[in-house]
Amino acid sequence: MRKTVCYLQGVAPAATSAPEQGLASWGETRVVGKSIPRVDGYERVTGTAVYTLDMNLPGMLHTAIIRCPHAHARVKRVDTSAAEKMPGVRAILHGETPVAKIGWYAGPNGPTSWLFDPHCRYEGEEVAAVAAETPEQAFDAARSVVVEYEPLPFVVDMQQAQNAGAPAIHEGGNQPGKPEVYERGKIDAGFAEADAVLEQTYTTSTQIHTPMEVHCSVAQWEGAHLTVWDSTQGVFDMQQELARSFQMPVSSVRVINAYMGGGFGSKLDLGKYTVMAALLGRMTALPVKIALSREDTFRCVGNRPANILTLKAGAKKDGTLTAFSMQILGTTGAYPGGASSAYLVMDLYRCPNVRTEETAVYINAGKERAMRAPGFPQCAWALEQMMDALAEKLGMDPVELRLKNVPDVSQVRSGTPYTSSGLSRCLSEGAKAFGWKENFAKSKGEGAIRRGVGVAAGMWGWEGEANATAILKLYPDGSANLNIGCSDIGTGTKTVLAMVVSEELGVPVDRVQIEHADTGTTQYSPLSGGSQTVVANTPAVRAAAIAVKSDLLALAAEELKQPVEKLALREGAIEIEGPAGRRVPLQELKSLGECRVLVGVGRRQPHPKNKVALPFVTHFAEVEVNTRTGEVRVLRMLAAHDSGRVMNRLTYDNQVFGGITMGIGLATTEARILDAGQTGKMVNRNWHDYKLPTALDVPADMTSLPIELADIEANNTGAKGLGEPVTIPTAAAVANAVRHATGLRITQTPINPLQLVQRLAERRKEG
Amino acid sequence: MRKTVCYLQGVAPAATSAPEQGLASWGETRVVGKSIPRVDGYERVTGTAVYTLDMNLPGMLHTAIIRCPHAHARVKRVDTSAAEKMPGVRAILHGETPVAKIGWYAGPNGPTSWLFDPHCRYEGEEVAAVAAETPEQAFDAARSVVVEYEPLPFVVDMQQAQNAGAPAIHEGGNQPGKPEVYERGKIDAGFAEADAVLEQTYTTSTQIHTPMEVHCSVAQWEGAHLTVWDSTQGVFDMQQELARSFQMPVSSVRVINAYMGGGFGSKLDLGKYTVMAALLGRMTALPVKIALSREDTFRCVGNRPANILTLKAGAKKDGTLTAFSMQILGTTGAYPGGASSAYLVMDLYRCPNVRTEETAVYINAGKERAMRAPGFPQCAWALEQMMDALAEKLGMDPVELRLKNVPDVSQVRSGTPYTSSGLSRCLSEGAKAFGWKENFAKSKGEGAIRRGVGVAAGMWGWEGEANATAILKLYPDGSANLNIGCSDIGTGTKTVLAMVVSEELGVPVDRVQIEHADTGTTQYSPLSGGSQTVVANTPAVRAAAIAVKSDLLALAAEELKQPVEKLALREGAIEIEGPAGRRVPLQELKSLGECRVLVGVGRRQPHPKNKVALPFVTHFAEVEVNTRTGEVRVLRMLAAHDSGRVMNRLTYDNQVFGGITMGIGLATTEARILDAGQTGKMVNRNWHDYKLPTALDVPADMTSLPIELADIEANNTGAKGLGEPVTIPTAAAVANAVRHATGLRITQTPINPLQLVQRLAERRKEG
Repeated sequence: MRKTVCYLQGVAPAATSAPEQGLASWGETRVVGKSIPRVDGYERVTGTAVYTLDMNLPGMLHTAIIRCPHAHARVKRVDTSAAEKMPGVRAILHGETPVAKIGWYAGPNGPTSWLFDPHCRYEGEEVAAVAAETPEQAFDAARSVVVEYEPLPFVVDMQQAQNAGAPAIHEGGNQPGKPEVYERGKIDAGFAEADAVLEQTYTTSTQIHTPMEVHCSVAQWEGAHLTVWDSTQGVFDMQQELARSFQMPVSSVRVINAYMGGGFGSKLDLGKYTVMAALLGRMTALPVKIALSREDTFRCVGNRPANILTLKAGAKKDGTLTAFSMQILGTTGAYPGGASSAYLVMDLYRCPNVRTEETAVYINAGKERAMRAPGFPQCAWALEQMMDALAEKLGMDPVELRLKNVPDVSQVRSGTPYTSSGLSRCLSEGAKAFGWKENFAKSKGEGAIRRGVGVAAGMWGWEGEANATAILKLYPDGSANLNIGCSDIGTGTKTVLAMVVSEELGVPVDRVQIEHADTGTTQYSPLSGGSQTVVANTPAVRAAAIAVKSDLLALAAEELKQPVEKLALREGAIEIEGPAGRRVPLQELKSLGECRVLVGVGRRQPHPKNKVALPFVTHFAEVEVNTRTGEVRVLRMLAAHDSGRVMNRLTYDNQVFGGITMGIGLATTEARILDAGQTGKMVNRNWHDYKLPTALDVPADMTSLPIELADIEANNTGAKGLGEPVTIPTAAAVANAVRHATGLRITQTPINPLQLVQRLAERRKEG
Repeated sequence: MRKTVCYLQGVAPAATSAPEQGLASWGETRVVGKSIPRVDGYERVTGTAVYTLDMNLPGMLHTAIIRCPHAHARVKRVDTSAAEKMPGVRAILHGETPVAKIGWYAGPNGPTSWLFDPHCRYEGEEVAAVAAETPEQAFDAARSVVVEYEPLPFVVDMQQAQNAGAPAIHEGGNQPGKPEVYERGKIDAGFAEADAVLEQTYTTSTQIHTPMEVHCSVAQWEGAHLTVWDSTQGVFDMQQELARSFQMPVSSVRVINAYMGGGFGSKLDLGKYTVMAALLGRMTALPVKIALSREDTFRCVGNRPANILTLKAGAKKDGTLTAFSMQILGTTGAYPGGASSAYLVMDLYRCPNVRTEETAVYINAGKERAMRAPGFPQCAWALEQMMDALAEKLGMDPVELRLKNVPDVSQVRSGTPYTSSGLSRCLSEGAKAFGWKENFAKSKGEGAIRRGVGVAAGMWGWEGEANATAILKLYPDGSANLNIGCSDIGTGTKTVLAMVVSEELGVPVDRVQIEHADTGTTQYSPLSGGSQTVVANTPAVRAAAIAVKSDLLALAAEELKQPVEKLALREGAIEIEGPAGRRVPLQELKSLGECRVLVGVGRRQPHPKNKVALPFVTHFAEVEVNTRTGEVRVLRMLAAHDSGRVMNRLTYDNQVFGGITMGIGLATTEARILDAGQTGKMVNRNWHDYKLPTALDVPADMTSLPIELADIEANNTGAKGLGEPVTIPTAAAVANAVRHATGLRITQTPINPLQLVQRLAERRKEG
């Protein structure tokens, strides 16, 4: 009979009470902050990693979706009689299928639309789905489904959609809601006291997320329980939205996400395809896989919406900002969503008088979805070019102008102070490292090939949710198992979490097994997005590790008959301090063996309520413009980031370089092109026609400069968000560099050769 | 941007501090104690439940094991050349395969043997294994593996194995260790002061577990990580033993147990077949399934070993026990293990002078494994017949004799008091409900068909481990998810756990989803065995539910602006007490919706250290003996149990009836028959020749009489163990009833017609 020890009273209180672990700082770190390769690198590169698309279940059916070929149409009739007789076909769903008459719950609010709405509002909208034994059979059968459409007039231009006679996309018209207005101070007085007032309209193109891994779901029913494997950024959000779709208890839905190849926000909401997989699974009593094509991911699962931003700014001679006024027109696509964000204008710089007005409009195109820092790169495109223009007007250095206006507090939060703000340091240390002064002074060279430098700053405006829970199990051999609900969407979250455990317990990272992102078996974490993944989860993991350590030291103190203060856990051993000091490897700790497993529970603790923890950023760009061809080459980027503590320098830099790449895409090549004249269709719906920057399009010379303020007030690991800030100012910095190189202010993304050559020609004509 | 609430400081302390939840009693219950059908009944009866045998993974191989056909032999040569060429064959393992030269770690101590030992010690020992694409190919190829054996002399009789010239099964001889001796008081003085001294030798046959679901494992490697689906009673034990077998970090091994069809102790230890599946998986880089045949389960995965028990007992005229002396000879089979238990003699009755001596011996037969109350039914077979004989000798009623000797404390634990003891009530209330006095007085009828009644008592001697952790997630719609590491081996554990959640939170049981028995994703629970499953897990679950409730009420108090003392959680709603009282359904609690998930963590709390919590039992049997044919029919059983609080009356009664059935099997039909003369082989290795009681062999009239002492000191649900006590006294009660009916004392199990007819004939001859 085994001895029953392991009654540890102190465990959980230690794990959750703030004074003991909540906001403590690490001293010098052994693991955290170092460059550690991904713990799942082997699985990812050898192909043993099972992505949702790799899932195969016995008897699993495959699916093809029939999509509306018109930008705007009404479905008159769906005839499935021929398709039903095709080989391997097991079920067909469309708007007249009784079970399919359900709402589509994407996002936290009520149904966004019907699952199959006979009123198709964009080209690509779902009309029917076929499940068959093989993907080929499903595809063939889908081609045999006859759909009769009544095409309707369409509108794909934001401004045209606002016109009185424009085709109505929804019954209530083309405006999803009232314009969103923010106001502080006295805007007219602000402009009145300004020495310089500038106004400019900027426009951004629609950018597509298009993550490497296409959207995919596998659904399986067991009795009244539904399990869905999904390529999703938030299993708990999917679970809740599926439960609402099917009117089931939340606990009867299980959502699992294993390996994932990117999301960028396009995998935050429940997809119609996921609901279809579940419905087809219920109809056939078989598992069903549904995977989107690359083309589908371009048309149907989100985008960063185009914005038209008119910004008016006032400043005194010394550079003090006096007023900002901004109007943004954005489109949510064919369904409600978020079209824009004026946040940066409200809060990045100290400015007493601000008014912003954001208007959204429907067009006949795929719905937007939150895309990496939704709204912020667009807003930065306007604001940071305006700051550049103001500096020019006032004869100030653009870095100096920004430095002059760095705020101490969050103005949009009524003056709440930041737990830390590295914006000034990002600007000044970034400028120094980049060689800003020298380059800005010298590079207005002549000749056909011109070089220029540009700067742009930014911040991210959301702290994220807080209620993540982590469970850590320590085994007697010193290996550990971490249970946490977050998705690793490809950013290396698992590696960072393992490093936190390693730091705290002295366990090598490869001995930390991580089970994650499964609503059935892991604990709640908020969705992996909005730069909250590391911020929400690492503190909970550290708290759990501290709880385990506290238990372990208590056990060791009892067994070794030593006061607990004399014991330390280092590198898989208990070290007894003092003259009679010795090392006891965990394997030799008998009481640990008897406990079998030490379980620690950790939650993220809130930081002080009267503060706000946000990340800051400044990007510096150097470009070369060929004034004959209009080609822009980004030669060099330096990214100075205050995202609090750097958790893993390797994955940190990867995030920075990835964000810059996306920003360069927005600046120079990416744009959804809709055929406004003939068809309303997206014409560049693939990786050939839609120009994503490749390795050859981004500079080899990219520098990540962490301004490391381990933010001990933000949380117990000191990290702030990184995923969003990395892409916010890039495009504006590039545009400012192009201005510096050429004297041209390009207000419209992408800065493509055609646009540049035209503008250069115009200038030549004018000059 | 979502509000970040859900900072609840009080949660975990409430979940773990003893005064608040540890030992509190429930008042009147709404759910607990009622008869609730199994929550997974639908899955089990429709076949959607996936047992390990049902697992199918893409590319999965199947396995056949080559087993030694001799009771004792040495493997000289294994020739796999023909088998390797057979269709579909992917890998063959045997003693000369380099990777297979590893130890077999069954149980917590060092290797029990080699995985493939050339010295085969029993018929059925593993010699080689073949993995092929189909089960049929594996089976065919196994027949083509040529093994050359050198047969050795064997011994399958315990007493013969002790002889000097007996074949040596291990190098050190046939005795696994020194006899285990327990002694208290002065044994000679005890017998000297007795008015009556009796001595008798009793023998029990070897009983086989043979659970409905055969033993099965599926192993799959992903890089350096091993996942094993296993029909096991303890995933965490398997995980640790596999890690030791493969010299891997514990965290790199994941063991999962889903649905299970019984274990009875035969699925407590790591099986060689499991190690083989993992090895073959590593050799082929494919998933491998290995399933035992029914025949294998009879020979190779355990048994309740035969015992020869010599018991001497002394008592005064008034029934006061003065001394017990017992010698047990038991066999562990061919490998070390547990052969017997003298516990009941030490602790069931008050007796100042006790000496027990237990000797184990090897024989050439399959190793024992702990079987439902290991050692106890054998010990009860002797002790409880002896109590009957003493009563007869002293002219006392057998119930009265027992009642007179019910102890107040655990004598074997130096007088530690029980948290509760219902033994007296089991005896007296059981006797009353059974009609003991009337039946015992009247039933010594004449004629060929005789009826008799018998009584026997018992207890279980192990409290179990304590360190179970449960995690409970409450969703805003009032449904819940429970995460806990224990296996539901078929007893209805999941249902009981859901009932505890339901009781505490007012959630219907079918809205409690349970994820369990997965070392990767669930928390530590001790193995499901030794009557500790409900005892270890329900308190942790209740603690977790209390933690969730405490959070929920705190949230509600804030939102509803009410003092928390005025709030109660009932039937999925917050009720505000007082004149302005109202009900707020959880769905309407905004702050709960914002929290998304409330996570509660609970651990089992220890009961006071100076007490011991154990269950007690008394069984009453009525039998009919046909003195012409020797047939014994058990007509009626009444089982009075003190197992603390009844958690689910339905599954409680099922346990009782199942335990009785197993006890009737031991009493009347079950015995492993080894061919001691010719071959040493087991001759009744299937369900046809090995006689398990069927529904027709057990009485329709079985009564479960819970003596419910909700044991508020034992733990916070008040439950004590049930799975073992239900089978401990049954066989002895039947034997005592046969004695009452016929006047014959049958000391050897099973009481079969042949034995009875012979004894009746002898008596007739003598008479």
